[in-house]
Amino acid sequence: MAKNFDVVVIGAGPGGYIAAIRAAQLGMSVACIDAASNADGKPAPGGTCTNVGCIPSKAMLQSSEHFDQVNHHFSEHGIEVKGVSLKLDTLIGRKDNVVKQNNEGILYLFKKNKVTFFHGTGTFSAYVDGGWSIKVSGQSEEELIAKHVVVATGSAPRQLPGLDFDEKKILSNDGALRIPAVPKKLGVIGAGVIGLELGSVWRRLGAEVTVLEAAPDFLAVCDQQVAKEAHKVFTKQGLNIQTGVKIGEVKTSAKSVTVPYTDAAGAEQSITVDHLIVSIGRVPHTQGLGVETVGLKVDERGFVVVDDDCRTNLPNVWAVGDVVRGPMLAHKAEEEGVAVAERIAGQHGHVNFGTIPSVIYTSPEIAWVGKTEQQLKTEGVNYRAGSFPFLANGRARALGDTTGFVKILADAKSDEVLGVHIIGPSASELIAEAVTIMEFRGAAEDIARICHAHPTLSESVKEAALAVDKRSLNF
Amino acid sequence: MAKNFDVVVIGAGPGGYIAAIRAAQLGMSVACIDAASNADGKPAPGGTCTNVGCIPSKAMLQSSEHFDQVNHHFSEHGIEVKGVSLKLDTLIGRKDNVVKQNNEGILYLFKKNKVTFFHGTGTFSAYVDGGWSIKVSGQSEEELIAKHVVVATGSAPRQLPGLDFDEKKILSNDGALRIPAVPKKLGVIGAGVIGLELGSVWRRLGAEVTVLEAAPDFLAVCDQQVAKEAHKVFTKQGLNIQTGVKIGEVKTSAKSVTVPYTDAAGAEQSITVDHLIVSIGRVPHTQGLGVETVGLKVDERGFVVVDDDCRTNLPNVWAVGDVVRGPMLAHKAEEEGVAVAERIAGQHGHVNFGTIPSVIYTSPEIAWVGKTEQQLKTEGVNYRAGSFPFLANGRARALGDTTGFVKILADAKSDEVLGVHIIGPSASELIAEAVTIMEFRGAAEDIARICHAHPTLSESVKEAALAVDKRSLNF
Repeated sequence: MAKNFDVVVIGAGPGGYIAAIRAAQLGMSVACIDAASNADGKPAPGGTCTNVGCIPSKAMLQSSEHFDQVNHHFSEHGIEVKGVSLKLDTLIGRKDNVVKQNNEGILYLFKKNKVTFFHGTGTFSAYVDGGWSIKVSGQSEEELIAKHVVVATGSAPRQLPGLDFDEKKILSNDGALRIPAVPKKLGVIGAGVIGLELGSVWRRLGAEVTVLEAAPDFLAVCDQQVAKEAHKVFTKQGLNIQTGVKIGEVKTSAKSVTVPYTDAAGAEQSITVDHLIVSIGRVPHTQGLGVETVGLKVDERGFVVVDDDCRTNLPNVWAVGDVVRGPMLAHKAEEEGVAVAERIAGQHGHVNFGTIPSVIYTSPEIAWVGKTEQQLKTEGVNYRAGSFPFLANGRARALGDTTGFVKILADAKSDEVLGVHIIGPSASELIAEAVTIMEFRGAAEDIARICHAHPTLSESVKEAALAVDKRSLNF
Repeated sequence: MAKNFDVVVIGAGPGGYIAAIRAAQLGMSVACIDAASNADGKPAPGGTCTNVGCIPSKAMLQSSEHFDQVNHHFSEHGIEVKGVSLKLDTLIGRKDNVVKQNNEGILYLFKKNKVTFFHGTGTFSAYVDGGWSIKVSGQSEEELIAKHVVVATGSAPRQLPGLDFDEKKILSNDGALRIPAVPKKLGVIGAGVIGLELGSVWRRLGAEVTVLEAAPDFLAVCDQQVAKEAHKVFTKQGLNIQTGVKIGEVKTSAKSVTVPYTDAAGAEQSITVDHLIVSIGRVPHTQGLGVETVGLKVDERGFVVVDDDCRTNLPNVWAVGDVVRGPMLAHKAEEEGVAVAERIAGQHGHVNFGTIPSVIYTSPEIAWVGKTEQQLKTEGVNYRAGSFPFLANGRARALGDTTGFVKILADAKSDEVLGVHIIGPSASELIAEAVTIMEFRGAAEDIARICHAHPTLSESVKEAALAVDKRSLNF
């Protein structure tokens, strides 16, 4: 007997679970289907973000940050320790526990909001009278009829052609979060967010890490001044970063992985490492969704095609998050999830793509919103730039972490803030103010006039805004 | 031979040095006078904040936080250490070095901005042709003639009647930052910002700390929900907090200090401690300023009387910061300093007292801006409240610090944000977004609609805003 719902959400990642909760809040009957299981075979909702992405990587970044501090910086504070050692299984166990808390949190939220959860794979069967028939298979076996369907099936790591992830030697973001012993040598292909975050984790835990990047520029997605600073800092920390390389045929043995490559100067090189993380981007995940059965339109790269409002080519079928165009970010997926639920309810959800922040959770963190300086140049926008180094910030000095700076780009005529770029301590938190200013289409002068608590890192945002008008007070 | 300046600033704390720099930026000839010296007799500009306040306390809070983490939390992360010991002189030396960096930073800024610095006490002599005659005495001996004077002489710790600060046994904020050995028992009179911050430092370093507060309510200045949480957390951490006490006659010997008191229930009690921090507020500092010589008006509590624009009763004499009405906060002083410099230059500086944030740098931190719930009730304002616990925030879980919550108060009709109250990790940084929203007179709905990076603590601000409308997504 089929079960009827107003809304069925396929996928319980940040886009999916949030869409489901918001739809339920708006009075609709909602189901959410997700196939992920934890080690005990229990449901593991939360998607890539919760299970093998944002959350576990941040847990491990925190642990490895502590390890780095105790090994290299505690003596500055007068804290002397004898014999520091690492129990990697405890570190990984803590990370697994943080993930579990988040999994359970989502299941609790489903209950609280009366979202019916199905543990399995959701597949389009047909359009039937009354809506879309969705088959659940796996741990649960059901047929659901949905007036509206929200596809939130996320993304999967891209493989190097011919090099499967075995998660033992050749690691995606998944395997990279559970290497059983700190490797002596670790290779990373791809100097993007994931490669840098996970490379940083293992470097801090003691691995010798080499990062190979095909693109000629390091962190081309970032403001180039930030990218340059990041390259300098990461290199100083011990990450060996090679850009403009061409990867040859990777050879895997039981003991090691050999990666031959041509370096930027054209010379033949090779590294032999214990494990190789391949983080060369992610591809939309639509396997098992029944795309062809119902004629759901996907583009040549596999993304579900949607309009600005996340409508697919099929009536009452929506798609959000990594499986559609736009940045593959949890918070972008969440915003789309909320907006779609509100549109289904007849409201007017809206996502402003111009004010979605990006973060790289390395140490120092990197965060930005809006345009980079190179984008403004390309677009021929007349702008003014102001920046302020954390070196001149009292709180950063007190923390003992003065790396990096805040940079603000503002329209030369209107002074409207067009972009904010931060590399430094707590960049991920400081960016919230910048997003807020940009949502209000505020000016650099607005930030400069707003009282910022002393002593805080956020004063650096104010000072960067003052610097746009060449009137920094503390630099 | 007297030296002439457009502006002479007396005091180089946050209000004074910032006023001096801003005035110089605006094209005026500026002098700044400050008497503080470091241990080598060299100038130590920066005032209480830099020398014996915000900056050194944050340096020691950071060090003691590390000490607390390594002693109590590292094993959760799989980091095992043997034999943790504390070299207090190194910890204090690091703090002194952070202070020195800030002192030197200000002297550098004076040079860069062509502010002439005089190391000594500035005293009003007379009104002469061309302006105010200010005598500098001490390390420098000069006579300055100023068209405009900015008084920024700050504040000093209030003593218990009959109990002088010897900074050995009876400590102000100054001596409390340089106790030569971690005390076994430490007493604190006054559970305000300074008492709690310094009490926390020494507790984390191993002292048994008792805090005695005369007021019946703990942290009456805070939103009472926050105060309640703070009391719970601090007590759990081991601070022994007694409110509603009446302090008797304190007895000091070479070895200890005995503080008899009547507790809230009326019972006679007594503590004997190694040192006693007295942090019962601060008084405006005008000693040596020559207030009476020129008839500068001060009120019965010693504050220099100013209007909304920081004008005193004397022509072209202004006063800013702790020495005038309003909260004794470095960033309030800075805003006034900028505004006064701009007014002198014929501009229209403005300070919005409704959006000055307050912070208590304990662990967890406490930060707020705008009205508390009890204030709104008293004022009869119709409001809605929303809060969100860090326990439900993914980043807080990853950090391993889920104490506290964010609480937002908004007008029931317009939804305008009237107050934001945070107790939890990085509250001091998270408050910047709240101040920004309030400066734009934004609504809770605005915060709720703004994309917040995932996973960050700032998502809790968004969720609290959603909670105002009873539609939290993650709780």
